[in-house]
Amino acid sequence: MAQKKMILDLDTGIDDALAIAYALASDEVDLIGITSTYGNVVTAEAGQNSLRILELLGRTDIPVYLGLPHSSTTDHFDVMQVSKDIHGVNGIGEVSLPTAPRAVENKSAVDFMIEAARQYGDDLIIVPTGPMTNLAAALAQAPEITALVGNVTFMGGALTVPGNVTEVGEANINQDPAAADQVLRSPFNLTMVGLDVTLRTLLTKKETQLWRDLGTKSSVAFANIVDYYIDAYAALNPQLHGCALHDPLAVGVALDPSLVQTIGLNMKVETEAPFAARTVGDVDRLDLPTTNVQVAVNVDVPKYLQRFMHRLTALFAHN
Amino acid sequence: MAQKKMILDLDTGIDDALAIAYALASDEVDLIGITSTYGNVVTAEAGQNSLRILELLGRTDIPVYLGLPHSSTTDHFDVMQVSKDIHGVNGIGEVSLPTAPRAVENKSAVDFMIEAARQYGDDLIIVPTGPMTNLAAALAQAPEITALVGNVTFMGGALTVPGNVTEVGEANINQDPAAADQVLRSPFNLTMVGLDVTLRTLLTKKETQLWRDLGTKSSVAFANIVDYYIDAYAALNPQLHGCALHDPLAVGVALDPSLVQTIGLNMKVETEAPFAARTVGDVDRLDLPTTNVQVAVNVDVPKYLQRFMHRLTALFAHN
Repeated sequence: MAQKKMILDLDTGIDDALAIAYALASDEVDLIGITSTYGNVVTAEAGQNSLRILELLGRTDIPVYLGLPHSSTTDHFDVMQVSKDIHGVNGIGEVSLPTAPRAVENKSAVDFMIEAARQYGDDLIIVPTGPMTNLAAALAQAPEITALVGNVTFMGGALTVPGNVTEVGEANINQDPAAADQVLRSPFNLTMVGLDVTLRTLLTKKETQLWRDLGTKSSVAFANIVDYYIDAYAALNPQLHGCALHDPLAVGVALDPSLVQTIGLNMKVETEAPFAARTVGDVDRLDLPTTNVQVAVNVDVPKYLQRFMHRLTALFAHN
Repeated sequence: MAQKKMILDLDTGIDDALAIAYALASDEVDLIGITSTYGNVVTAEAGQNSLRILELLGRTDIPVYLGLPHSSTTDHFDVMQVSKDIHGVNGIGEVSLPTAPRAVENKSAVDFMIEAARQYGDDLIIVPTGPMTNLAAALAQAPEITALVGNVTFMGGALTVPGNVTEVGEANINQDPAAADQVLRSPFNLTMVGLDVTLRTLLTKKETQLWRDLGTKSSVAFANIVDYYIDAYAALNPQLHGCALHDPLAVGVALDPSLVQTIGLNMKVETEAPFAARTVGDVDRLDLPTTNVQVAVNVDVPKYLQRFMHRLTALFAHN
């Protein structure tokens, strides 16, 4: 089997940084580029954070592309206070990482996605873990890519549990419900890794202590970054007893769908308040013989956590 | 295996009438009584309609008990206009069936449920297809029945699709969200047969014509009753191309869970507007090792429809 190619579309972010690490630690995939979006931080800062994490992990060969700076239905984006509370103002837990020597590419994130779809086709997996704005723009510009790309595995949405921004809205989808609706209604082969499963895969300071004990540059930096996130979760979601591994779970599922139980569903995204951002089945397409979204509704928690720790610890040990 | 005992808790209703017929046509179960609730009609009328259907089908041996007349949080109930539109003002498609000679029992629905739970224990299946008011009252009066009753398979709720009264609220749950919340959070062994699956099992006039052609008293009456329902669906939900077999699907699943794909989930019901009546996973209980609700999220449509028609046609042929 050919090695899969992956694009991460990130608003980097603490769990986005863990998603980068998980992808780099996975031999079965080649991370061909990171595209940047807004959310946990603004798009430009997301790009810089991705470059800093790649530098920290010794992978300065991987290009970073800037995506759109705001949602498809607005002309501006401000980081929400809750994002700053969870990820820190700098997006990586107020940990100071040096500015990376490598700069972002001149090519846009949208153009890179389209060119990669044409080049790699079925071998390409796109993993958006922020708003769907970049992917929806690529879809609008080159609709044929839906039939080319092997799979889109996104972190976002909530089908069987409440949202984390509103009762029905999850943070990523809530940034641009219209873009998410376009992607979910499109013919992309989609896998949804939403709060249904990400709220079950939790990391604690017991695990980050193992990294800290390694004593390498990256292991200590990641322990510090993730401890900020664990402290934020303890303050905001004390009932969870840990921080949710949202974005790295999406990478894990993209590489091994057997980690989750999925149901097939033709979906839409509500765009009108107060139900905006709800990811839900489309009754008008319930009777179609096929479904284009596999929604993860359960996860093998011990198996995933063991794999997550095994891979990231091995990566951090050598950087 | 001992023959299972079943109580139907109905707001009879056209699809409730089909649920009675399905239970009577199923040799593997003994319908020991019907309890009445409000919804499609008022509780007293639901009781009379159940008696009429039992008379029509030659099963005057089955007792009918009256339940509570309104929700746990109100002091009055009025039938909604949409209920009259779908089921007719008399609840059975404006078809005139004679008043049944048999009267309702003196014992209350709640007392009957509790006594049956104590008598039959694990062999008892309770199938509520209306508001959960009666079952919640039984639960409050005799909490120990949650460990006695074999299974509660209810028609209600919507996990993966929008509601049919609000964006998040299904009609049965919407009548008494607080009662449904008490039942879903209880230790009852529950199976949820909601809009997720009932909107996929559709009956058309092609099938009712087969009943009409039988020419028996019950087959013609049911053809007339269900045609009213099909016409209402055509007006209100033209995209479905048929009427939804909500309540008889719950009976079918109660007798044969293999008809549906289920996911295990610990659930709650939202009780505050605008999200009231949403049936959804409870994040605070996501990490429990066991789940008490199996939610049907997909159904073997051809298998169910074939069984439905086989059983009901055989029943109608002899009545």
